[in-house]
Amino acid sequence: MSKEAFPLSKVYGLLEPGPVVLVSTVREGRTNIMTMSWHTMLEFEPPLVGCVISNGNFTFDSLQATKECVINIPTVALSKKVVDCGNSSGRTVDKFKAFGLTPVAALCVEAPLIDECYANLECRVVDQTMVAKYNFFVLEVVNAWIDPRQEHPQTMHHLGDGSFMVAGKTIHLPSKMK
Amino acid sequence: MSKEAFPLSKVYGLLEPGPVVLVSTVREGRTNIMTMSWHTMLEFEPPLVGCVISNGNFTFDSLQATKECVINIPTVALSKKVVDCGNSSGRTVDKFKAFGLTPVAALCVEAPLIDECYANLECRVVDQTMVAKYNFFVLEVVNAWIDPRQEHPQTMHHLGDGSFMVAGKTIHLPSKMK
Repeated sequence: MSKEAFPLSKVYGLLEPGPVVLVSTVREGRTNIMTMSWHTMLEFEPPLVGCVISNGNFTFDSLQATKECVINIPTVALSKKVVDCGNSSGRTVDKFKAFGLTPVAALCVEAPLIDECYANLECRVVDQTMVAKYNFFVLEVVNAWIDPRQEHPQTMHHLGDGSFMVAGKTIHLPSKMK
Repeated sequence: MSKEAFPLSKVYGLLEPGPVVLVSTVREGRTNIMTMSWHTMLEFEPPLVGCVISNGNFTFDSLQATKECVINIPTVALSKKVVDCGNSSGRTVDKFKAFGLTPVAALCVEAPLIDECYANLECRVVDQTMVAKYNFFVLEVVNAWIDPRQEHPQTMHHLGDGSFMVAGKTIHLPSKMK
């Protein structure tokens, strides 16, 4: 894997723009991947991420049991695989094999990184109090990786009904916000 | 205001892509605007939105007191005003006046719509149980407006440190996801 360690203090900048992400898990040797758009930063550092993972999804049970996952951020080059992952269930499909994605060992969690994604955030579940009501998990990012060659990654952003916005140009403004 | 009613069932498609938004409030006749990027959908319909509003912000007190706000979605045409709103506090600045934004009466809440934004979501706070720990409010979108002339709005997406990604092209994929 040709990735570098990414500082946890900068993780917010990867998730704030709202990219579609792939959540990878493993439970008793069985890996899975879920496509997700319902996530938000909750804290800068240590980075906390809140996300909705429906209790109808195969990933829900893995996440509750193992309390670990990886948030992988794809670019539009992976768009077909992203949609394939969203259109199928880990109950019946081994998505790594079926869609030609490469699992790579993470450093701090058992769940695999997806090599083809330009950034990978190793996460642990730290709060499940909102799961019963909203399927809302609070994750702490404990380790992060990035492909340093992708300066302006063309992330995908879900608009609903099969439409996605692809990241456009980057502009710089005199913001005092972090 | 040249806007149309927007179906609540489609609101998720406005917020999932992660745009920077402007949150408007009013308390005892005093309006305010806050720039925000930490939000996520929590439910399709009625649309529930979770968002982090720091207890250091002037908006925090208004929102707790009135339990109402409007989420206004700007395009890059408003980028200077968006950054101005983020760089200042409602404690000392009347942001509507200072930055030339136009308050318009909402239908279901007291908080004003920002006319210049291409979409406006009237919201009520429905759950504050996560405010103490994460400054995380759950909002229900009770009414929504959109400018029908903006088919591909160039929303802004925060990357941190003064950088913003501007929405690029829209692609269509055979996704079965809602």
